[in-house]
Amino acid sequence: MDLNADLGEGFGIWRLGDDEALLGLITSANVACGFHGGDPSTMRRVCAAAAERDVAIGAQVGYRDLAGFGRRHIAYGFAELRDEVTYQLGALDAFCRVARVRVRYLKPHGALYHAASTDEAQAAALVAAVNDYDHELPVLCAPGSMLAQLATGAGLRVVAEGFADRGYLPTGALVPRSAPGALVTDPEQVAARAVRMATERTVVAVDGSVVPCQVESICLHGDTPGAVRCAELVRAALVEAGVTLTAFA
Amino acid sequence: MDLNADLGEGFGIWRLGDDEALLGLITSANVACGFHGGDPSTMRRVCAAAAERDVAIGAQVGYRDLAGFGRRHIAYGFAELRDEVTYQLGALDAFCRVARVRVRYLKPHGALYHAASTDEAQAAALVAAVNDYDHELPVLCAPGSMLAQLATGAGLRVVAEGFADRGYLPTGALVPRSAPGALVTDPEQVAARAVRMATERTVVAVDGSVVPCQVESICLHGDTPGAVRCAELVRAALVEAGVTLTAFA
Amino acid sequence: MDLNADLGEGFGIWRLGDDEALLGLITSANVACGFHGGDPSTMRRVCAAAAERDVAIGAQVGYRDLAGFGRRHIAYGFAELRDEVTYQLGALDAFCRVARVRVRYLKPHGALYHAASTDEAQAAALVAAVNDYDHELPVLCAPGSMLAQLATGAGLRVVAEGFADRGYLPTGALVPRSAPGALVTDPEQVAARAVRMATERTVVAVDGSVVPCQVESICLHGDTPGAVRCAELVRAALVEAGVTLTAFA
Amino acid sequence: MDLNADLGEGFGIWRLGDDEALLGLITSANVACGFHGGDPSTMRRVCAAAAERDVAIGAQVGYRDLAGFGRRHIAYGFAELRDEVTYQLGALDAFCRVARVRVRYLKPHGALYHAASTDEAQAAALVAAVNDYDHELPVLCAPGSMLAQLATGAGLRVVAEGFADRGYLPTGALVPRSAPGALVTDPEQVAARAVRMATERTVVAVDGSVVPCQVESICLHGDTPGAVRCAELVRAALVEAGVTLTAFA
Repeated sequence: MDLNADLGEGFGIWRLGDDEALLGLITSANVACGFHGGDPSTMRRVCAAAAERDVAIGAQVGYRDLAGFGRRHIAYGFAELRDEVTYQLGALDAFCRVARVRVRYLKPHGALYHAASTDEAQAAALVAAVNDYDHELPVLCAPGSMLAQLATGAGLRVVAEGFADRGYLPTGALVPRSAPGALVTDPEQVAARAVRMATERTVVAVDGSVVPCQVESICLHGDTPGAVRCAELVRAALVEAGVTLTAFA
Repeated sequence: MDLNADLGEGFGIWRLGDDEALLGLITSANVACGFHGGDPSTMRRVCAAAAERDVAIGAQVGYRDLAGFGRRHIAYGFAELRDEVTYQLGALDAFCRVARVRVRYLKPHGALYHAASTDEAQAAALVAAVNDYDHELPVLCAPGSMLAQLATGAGLRVVAEGFADRGYLPTGALVPRSAPGALVTDPEQVAARAVRMATERTVVAVDGSVVPCQVESICLHGDTPGAVRCAELVRAALVEAGVTLTAFA
Repeated sequence: MDLNADLGEGFGIWRLGDDEALLGLITSANVACGFHGGDPSTMRRVCAAAAERDVAIGAQVGYRDLAGFGRRHIAYGFAELRDEVTYQLGALDAFCRVARVRVRYLKPHGALYHAASTDEAQAAALVAAVNDYDHELPVLCAPGSMLAQLATGAGLRVVAEGFADRGYLPTGALVPRSAPGALVTDPEQVAARAVRMATERTVVAVDGSVVPCQVESICLHGDTPGAVRCAELVRAALVEAGVTLTAFA
Repeated sequence: MDLNADLGEGFGIWRLGDDEALLGLITSANVACGFHGGDPSTMRRVCAAAAERDVAIGAQVGYRDLAGFGRRHIAYGFAELRDEVTYQLGALDAFCRVARVRVRYLKPHGALYHAASTDEAQAAALVAAVNDYDHELPVLCAPGSMLAQLATGAGLRVVAEGFADRGYLPTGALVPRSAPGALVTDPEQVAARAVRMATERTVVAVDGSVVPCQVESICLHGDTPGAVRCAELVRAALVEAGVTLTAFA
């Protein structure tokens, strides 16, 4: 099983999340590329640190929206979004190259992640950007999403991710954030759900039913002290359960 | 002799210069990388067009200053400037890769060009960025500049450029823009100076003396209709004089 | 009748539209406020020129999106959009104050104009920004739009505008840009439609029916030489028809 | 004596400093205006909170440089800097207006603060912006600086500020940050220096000499927990010494 988390999401003087702590826990780092967060010096530092610890580096691409941290949907057309993503991919790859590694996958951020789950033009833009840049690059995304479908159709490798701290519907989809049961807040429970995902490939849905959850990666968070503590528990529980933690890329 | 010009310097809806006309005249295109001008879709389009015409693509890197078009000096420190340049290099290289070519050289833009002529930290930042990214990449700059010296010292290939439409001092330096004789405006005269640069490796200075001008490239401009017409004359005069026009990279 | 047009939509080195020509034709200038276009020095220059010619100045507020010129919908929430608009209003008012005048109205730009026609939260954000800043400020918008309704409900003055160069449906709505008859390109015809709007308060719809068109302002364009020529014809035709041209504010 | 501090210096999702704690300690809030930090929603929130507590609001204007937090010198010319400052003044004043107060003074931030101490064009740009916008607005700056001189010459009110946590040279200037004695880190000592500034209008210089320090305001910091604790001590010591704390504006 792979563990991924968002890194390098500060900008200039402003910091966000505990990159250092997460780098010791994860196998894949989604590094922000400067459009929703991340600046060149942060990218260089995070890429160097990840390379040193053998953590795989992925391009966490987002909308051009520092003020909104890439969390507001923007109605990009296909070509302009493809090009914005290509730009970010190349920029991050430069810092990987400096660190003697390469970008190993792509994962969309925030509102782009959500749009790519259902919006055909935006999902296709991500697929085209990856395809044009490096056909070997996997795409990390939600299982069953529009992005997963289009990427598979284009012959790209798709890596599905799960969220041990989010509630699931019996359909296998996430409980919407506004609905009851959207978040699992007890760290012990989050860890137990991660172990179930990794060993049985299932998750217990909000109605108590056991649902298939075929994921190759689990997404961790690190933007609060509590989140880091929870991530530590998840990792420890997986190791104790005999799960091998290794980057998918 | 190589002919270089700045391309892709629009941003979003705003256009600048006649990229199409210049692509038919030059052998090397300095493509803006999004910090002082240039946006991802423009970069893609210009890289594709340049690749199609066998024009070499260089990274025209600048300060992060769209509002000032990179023409205001910014007191960057070494590390942050190195990283900003690395970012731009990688971003442009992505579009080259999409066009099945690669970035072939680096040239600083505007205030960074000027700073790199005398400021050791900023010149060193450019050298470090190139060195870390690709040691084989030449640097296109003013002969005798701090950048030329540091790049040479670091084992990089340095390509000196001349300006057929600028006045020269007997020292071989350009006449400052505020001084008389800074600009040569008569197109015929500009063309004649270009031919002299290419065939005799000299230039006539403002005091009438003939000065050595060892350059491998001549910089053309295309931001006004008159500039394009002048560039056409320069190219025609060089061809008529038997000069072979070919990219240095 | 009032004639309005977008002005000051360049940014930094980049120019857009013929501000000078339009200032001689219009009675109200929608001045860009720096978020989708417009920079402080342009704002100052345009405000000074408009004040000198007794042209009323309105705040042409837009999304924070220079790269997309404010033409891409952004899913702003109520409070953050209200605040972005307040910021722009105040910034423009500063340059009006320097020119010894004041901002006289607000008009949304591009994708915000469209969103405000139907999106309640975004329309309400515009209304709240105006209400909080200056309850006396009119809102220039499409008749019957969500913005017009909410602004009226809040006790603001609403000024409806018409487009002499756009086709109308029998319902009084504009023909969508993708549909046949969306644009009226013949300048003589545009001028005749403007005269009809001003004198009879009607427009001939795409099906030939005559439809009421209760507008207090007609929007002109100036981003191409043809557009300026057309605007000149519109003004001349209105003057010849005895229509008094005067700012609504 | 007035106590001033920088507030509202976050941007979007990113936070900086403890605005809430500082608002309870100071009499004047230097509110960031969106160019080096600060976003419209933060500006609105901080202005409302300051107005509620009767803290005077000043425009903390900076260079257009979010990536560098306004700490890198930018070689702005007179007119473009004047216009950038006017824009920021107006934008902040809009949020003051919403909070039923007004901008009460101007203070430059970071590299602009330093430039305005010695650079005539940049200092003159600040003076022109204030003069054009509101001649009654005081300028908060370093005593003896170029800005202080030009503002005085233009008939503006100049308010000098002191730094209880910085070392002073016998000349009355600050010890450069790179030199020994630049910072006073013991909170008790900082508080004692503040009391001396307020009651005796002097400061003990690095060589032990007692130097005049005619200031109307003392600058506090709040970007670390230690800084807030120190600011609390300063305020408490001033109150205990019988100093009346009140805004200068």
